[in-house]
Amino acid sequence: MSEPTPAGPVAPSAAAAVRLRPLGVGQVRITGGLAGEWQRRTREVTVPTAVALVESTGTLRNLEIAAGEAEGEFQGMHFADSDVAKVLEAVAWQLAAHGPDDLHRTIDHLTGVLERAQRPDGYLNSWIQLTAPDGRYAGLVSSHELYCYGHLIQAAVALDRATGDARLLAVARRVADHVVAEFLRGGRRDLDGHPEIETALVELYRHTAERSYLDQASEFVERRGHGHAGQSDRGSVYLVDHEPVRTATTLNGHAVRALYLEAGVVDVAVETGDEELLTASIRRWEDTVAHKTALTGGHGSRHLFEAFGDRDELPPDQSYNETCAAVASIHWSWRLLLATGESRFADLVERTLYNTVAASTSVDGDRFFYVNPLQRRPDSTPPPKGGRRRPWFRCACCPPNGARLIGSLGHYAATTSGDGVQLHLFVPAVIDTGDGVRLTVATEYPDDGRIRVTVDRTPAEPWRLELRLPAWSAPGRTALTVAGTPAGVGPDERGYLIVDRAWRPGDVVELDLDVAPRLTYPHHRLDALRGTVAVERGPLVYCFEQVDQPAGVTLDDLALTAGATLTTHRESGLGLPGPVMVVDAAADVLAAPPRTGLPYGATHAAAPAVRARVTARAVPYHLWDNRDDGAMRVWLPRSPRRP
Amino acid sequence: MSEPTPAGPVAPSAAAAVRLRPLGVGQVRITGGLAGEWQRRTREVTVPTAVALVESTGTLRNLEIAAGEAEGEFQGMHFADSDVAKVLEAVAWQLAAHGPDDLHRTIDHLTGVLERAQRPDGYLNSWIQLTAPDGRYAGLVSSHELYCYGHLIQAAVALDRATGDARLLAVARRVADHVVAEFLRGGRRDLDGHPEIETALVELYRHTAERSYLDQASEFVERRGHGHAGQSDRGSVYLVDHEPVRTATTLNGHAVRALYLEAGVVDVAVETGDEELLTASIRRWEDTVAHKTALTGGHGSRHLFEAFGDRDELPPDQSYNETCAAVASIHWSWRLLLATGESRFADLVERTLYNTVAASTSVDGDRFFYVNPLQRRPDSTPPPKGGRRRPWFRCACCPPNGARLIGSLGHYAATTSGDGVQLHLFVPAVIDTGDGVRLTVATEYPDDGRIRVTVDRTPAEPWRLELRLPAWSAPGRTALTVAGTPAGVGPDERGYLIVDRAWRPGDVVELDLDVAPRLTYPHHRLDALRGTVAVERGPLVYCFEQVDQPAGVTLDDLALTAGATLTTHRESGLGLPGPVMVVDAAADVLAAPPRTGLPYGATHAAAPAVRARVTARAVPYHLWDNRDDGAMRVWLPRSPRRP
Repeated sequence: MSEPTPAGPVAPSAAAAVRLRPLGVGQVRITGGLAGEWQRRTREVTVPTAVALVESTGTLRNLEIAAGEAEGEFQGMHFADSDVAKVLEAVAWQLAAHGPDDLHRTIDHLTGVLERAQRPDGYLNSWIQLTAPDGRYAGLVSSHELYCYGHLIQAAVALDRATGDARLLAVARRVADHVVAEFLRGGRRDLDGHPEIETALVELYRHTAERSYLDQASEFVERRGHGHAGQSDRGSVYLVDHEPVRTATTLNGHAVRALYLEAGVVDVAVETGDEELLTASIRRWEDTVAHKTALTGGHGSRHLFEAFGDRDELPPDQSYNETCAAVASIHWSWRLLLATGESRFADLVERTLYNTVAASTSVDGDRFFYVNPLQRRPDSTPPPKGGRRRPWFRCACCPPNGARLIGSLGHYAATTSGDGVQLHLFVPAVIDTGDGVRLTVATEYPDDGRIRVTVDRTPAEPWRLELRLPAWSAPGRTALTVAGTPAGVGPDERGYLIVDRAWRPGDVVELDLDVAPRLTYPHHRLDALRGTVAVERGPLVYCFEQVDQPAGVTLDDLALTAGATLTTHRESGLGLPGPVMVVDAAADVLAAPPRTGLPYGATHAAAPAVRARVTARAVPYHLWDNRDDGAMRVWLPRSPRRP
Repeated sequence: MSEPTPAGPVAPSAAAAVRLRPLGVGQVRITGGLAGEWQRRTREVTVPTAVALVESTGTLRNLEIAAGEAEGEFQGMHFADSDVAKVLEAVAWQLAAHGPDDLHRTIDHLTGVLERAQRPDGYLNSWIQLTAPDGRYAGLVSSHELYCYGHLIQAAVALDRATGDARLLAVARRVADHVVAEFLRGGRRDLDGHPEIETALVELYRHTAERSYLDQASEFVERRGHGHAGQSDRGSVYLVDHEPVRTATTLNGHAVRALYLEAGVVDVAVETGDEELLTASIRRWEDTVAHKTALTGGHGSRHLFEAFGDRDELPPDQSYNETCAAVASIHWSWRLLLATGESRFADLVERTLYNTVAASTSVDGDRFFYVNPLQRRPDSTPPPKGGRRRPWFRCACCPPNGARLIGSLGHYAATTSGDGVQLHLFVPAVIDTGDGVRLTVATEYPDDGRIRVTVDRTPAEPWRLELRLPAWSAPGRTALTVAGTPAGVGPDERGYLIVDRAWRPGDVVELDLDVAPRLTYPHHRLDALRGTVAVERGPLVYCFEQVDQPAGVTLDDLALTAGATLTTHRESGLGLPGPVMVVDAAADVLAAPPRTGLPYGATHAAAPAVRARVTARAVPYHLWDNRDDGAMRVWLPRSPRRP
């Protein structure tokens, strides 16, 4: 056995009730492919951009003023401290994934400011310190003080794990001790209007073994749903304080709040061995997947209050699908995967990552989506946070959130269990499990479905290699060969293909998934998608942008016949970096006569006329809005013409 | 000729470029029917409720404090003064429609408070006077000072016209003179963030012949769209200040603001004979009807910022369709009808009135909708202003808005022109045109399609009776008899059936419209309604409520086959007052297997199975939510089964 290796974002304690053990970010070194490109643009553009903006927008200056090192007034959103923390966490995982570079200067600078801004008793919040020093925790319903602590704690744990730099950890422990003194041992019974600290405190417990942090997280989780978050004119649902986590059956209210809370619920459940708590969260996950999840993995159907909608309320155009919600959803699903070992959770992680998270950043890494809809109409007048990607946001929660996830992406690719290694994400990588197994994964996934796993190093005793079989790749259209010999493709009850043997260095396992393009239909209860069809390929949702359609064809007139022929090939010259695997589909062009009077009638569109047949072109959804502001659709109408 | 009779809400000047001349509220006395019932519940319940609440909620007290007659702090929304004005206007039209009663005491009381609250220079706004006396017009982007003036002016004109009580008119003139001194003659170039005063100032000009009021209204209209409304974090679109009214081609932003502005635009256009301005407004009306109007006439597709959506963005579930927007839309369409004499404008007035406005108040008259969606899902978690009807709202704009419209409903039923009388709304009434013609209209419309018009009094010389032929009643299914003799049913180029003759007292004209229930389909560009069908009957949109469906049948599983058989009959015992004309439809029940995993798949719902056939029941949309909080749909899915 090699010596212990640094942990990643999630490191359950030895006693935790989890089936799988995650690896550290440094243990899964991504060597290329799409995931490698995401890490490159994050490292080279997004993180430097975020660091520069945290300084130029006055966000860091707020803390410098609180530290007595600068003059001036508070600037930006009142929870801006959290941006500094998320940037630091992104920097930390960056370093773990790609080794030291000049980011250490950034760490020194930001950590120093945070150290000096902290009050002697551990309190730290520049907005309160600069604007209402006597108002500590007085407006928790909206002040986000504990929310900011959560991100600070996560950044501190990340820095210590990734770089061994424990300076911010000391700050975070003083913060956490202050919270425990006030909210656990002290008389306070209230809650932050925005969950986030719950999962952070559990991770701090895991990192320090200080039990009171877990107790505090548990207390916050149990208090939720009893009105302790205070009164908001947006209601207790917005605060996700309307129902206790043990009885709630569905997610409502602010999506990011609800999803961060669930990550904390699962963390508390596995560390305390609370089956009931875990089961309740899984029940909500199942309900959310069945009724409140976009094809892209997006969560939050409403712009108003950035909230979940009702069951089956999944509009493609006005859905919110906030980038932060996608990150939080991955945190939740990943924790459930560790607890249960079931592939359905990894399936959603992959869907959300390859579509919503991947789309949230421009191909150049310097523009960002806050909102991720599945449709944009021509000449759209989007709500304020909608529309095209922007260089930054006054509420800058999303860009650094994506960056911290991409920086730590290796952590989400593989796990170990007592008797095996599980491969969840198919990324080209070198994986060192830390207990004598080293694997090399070679693949052009998702462009290509072949994943080649070479065992470079292995103990003598047998162990199980477990490969996730994605739900979209039917066993009948999937091939598996072990050391050159075809093997059966029968997933176990958790959805993984098991190869159990005594390995020799150089052994090769090849998995060939079916990434042929496919048509996907919505359930008939999804009112906003009735009568439409989408195109998917492997883990990728595709979309139709106006710019890719034949000249003279308006996107909104395109319709696909059920069972339409789909072909795929690499295409260059689309105005996108590198060749793109496009999907071409035989499509009908519906007649669009001039519109007068109400758009309702006795025969109106009962069967719109087909005026032509063309080839419609789709590109991966994560590439949309990188060329112009034209119309886009994931879901195309189904043609009235019989196949 | 009889002596001039008091005018209604809209009274174009003699010089105005209008084709039709409206009648006063007292000239069209509604004698029963559905409209009579709306007036009854408004008179007996809504108005007394509104008066009591204006006093009990502190709204009137704000003005009493400003008048130095009470102590305390400002309560409620900062534009609460407008509620007092709207209630007064409702009271005024009430009196005109039904003669004097104890409402005069209310008028004395409220008018007196407003008189005494007004500053010597004419300024009047209790919020500014109590909270920021030095901040007059300093925050017009959101202060609503001119918006409140608008409602005050409309109430004052209504009181003088309806009752001859000119006390509030004196207050309103001082207010208007103050506005003119500040915003026309003074140096101010800014605008209220919320239009409303424009149409009010034109009406005050019409009532007083003071030209500066028209000039001020014209100035406000022309200034719009140049950024003079100030900066809002919701953007200039929200303020309807993003494009000048002469060039804008579609409505965006806050629906009520946009629609009140259009009423003012048309008023200015006809009083100044500005063809270009009128044409621009008509162009936007055509675009709005073709792309941004719900089947119920509702406007505003987004809860966020109560705004219009993009073209063809018409969700049935999350549409806002604010009650105030419906009232404002009727103001706009009515003014365009007067200007052009074209039935399409009256058609939309009727659709909006019989569906959105009618539904906004409970059958008991004491509960109100702020938001009027076309679908409610089971177990819905509606946004704050959505959900069930409420007894009142902190932002109480809607209930009194509906009341002032219903009180003055007679005004919208008929008009005169140089050579004829036009009947726009088919309500049982006695109509006195004021120039020697008296008609009695007898009908059970919309339950029944027959409208019987008796000429009680007539001059000797011939004149034209013009009857609107609704777009939904095809000439081939419509019958017209004049004095017992069948007549041709050919509408003129404006959409009216013309009966031109020398009349004798006792002459009877009978129009028989086709009110058989019909299936209505959405245009194929309406993404949110694709693959659905609705039921209409005459001017009424119908809806399916869970409570009316067969036992064991879930509303969301119902589907209609194209061309489904519809039958109609009067039904009692539905838990609604009086018998209701229901529509029964042969429907399929779609199978709903348990939901697991994502609601998307290779075959998912491409053709859901039909598990049974039942009779689904629809009731008029305006009666929904009067029994329980169950699911409701206007648009039902179309069955996959071929007819």
